[in-house]
Amino acid sequence: MSNIITISREFGSGGRELAKRLAESLGYAYYDKEIIEEIAKQGNLDKEFIQNITENKNSNYNYTIGRSLNLYSVRQKQEMDILILQQKVIKELAKEGNCVIVGCGADLILKEYKPLNIFVYASSASKIKRCREKSSENIDINDKKLLKMIKNVDKSRARFYLLIGGDYWGYKENYTLCINTSEVQIKNIIPSVSSFARNYLGGND
Amino acid sequence: MSNIITISREFGSGGRELAKRLAESLGYAYYDKEIIEEIAKQGNLDKEFIQNITENKNSNYNYTIGRSLNLYSVRQKQEMDILILQQKVIKELAKEGNCVIVGCGADLILKEYKPLNIFVYASSASKIKRCREKSSENIDINDKKLLKMIKNVDKSRARFYLLIGGDYWGYKENYTLCINTSEVQIKNIIPSVSSFARNYLGGND
Repeated sequence: MSNIITISREFGSGGRELAKRLAESLGYAYYDKEIIEEIAKQGNLDKEFIQNITENKNSNYNYTIGRSLNLYSVRQKQEMDILILQQKVIKELAKEGNCVIVGCGADLILKEYKPLNIFVYASSASKIKRCREKSSENIDINDKKLLKMIKNVDKSRARFYLLIGGDYWGYKENYTLCINTSEVQIKNIIPSVSSFARNYLGGND
Repeated sequence: MSNIITISREFGSGGRELAKRLAESLGYAYYDKEIIEEIAKQGNLDKEFIQNITENKNSNYNYTIGRSLNLYSVRQKQEMDILILQQKVIKELAKEGNCVIVGCGADLILKEYKPLNIFVYASSASKIKRCREKSSENIDINDKKLLKMIKNVDKSRARFYLLIGGDYWGYKENYTLCINTSEVQIKNIIPSVSSFARNYLGGND
């Protein structure tokens, strides 16, 4: 059975970078946007639309949620179809071999693999700093507004976690390991996380 | 400067065993009950009395908390003296070299060392199971009562954390790493934690 590492992360915590570097360090496949692309391919759907569903966004996508029960049901049906397809894609990818999967509730979907479930988090100050550093342009809003935006992304993730049958996203009880990335360079902690993962998943260090 | 690892732990999570095994694995000194003994020696005090103060217990110790302001102040004064002595002892031990320290708010007291602060936790079911296994005698209470007892110990720890200037004991934001020990044998995760610690603290793996 494949070794699976799932990475759930607060927005701005550097969780995606950690996941990517961890996969490189371990020689594991890395799945992030690839999952959306595969769902789009298999379902013949628009990538942005899928992203809005799987990230539970209130987006600018040109799709009107009708207020009538009938239209709402159509939306619900589409959501369910995408969620079922997402589960199928994630399970197929897991079968292909060892991998690191970012987000998508993979910790819930792949329970049978007994994955190493990691949650990455950081202080608000650290997340604000990381967001500003990562952005290719100056983020033209103050820290208070930026933090609100960061928290809204995490709220969407928490709602999605509920939607697919989880309970409380980000509660340490739901993960094997929680890593605080405040005041650290992600690349500097990769040897530590990588060693932990190798040992935990039964490989050789 | 010494490498310091602090271990905070939920009662029944196996955190003390993890700390001891981790210290052995790394060749670090291990401080747990030794701290109480050192305070008793330096302050010429009774060990049980110190433990009641540092664990913030409502104990059976033969000491009456007077209801008058005057007597209460005596108690407060004694508490403060012990807490100051505890800080002194912990700082002295940290200076002696690399070590693993269990509890005592060492994560707060030794901030200047930038310790690796680990919080060890587990599911209620796992903590109940571990408590029953660890006890030399049959624990003659049902699971509900045992869990209440477990939670009361943790409540005392949380109150002590507040008393010495911390905020929320057990909140992942206060630690570098949180480790879930549900359904694992502590000895089996030592290589993982040990590798993480070595790398994190800048030693060689």
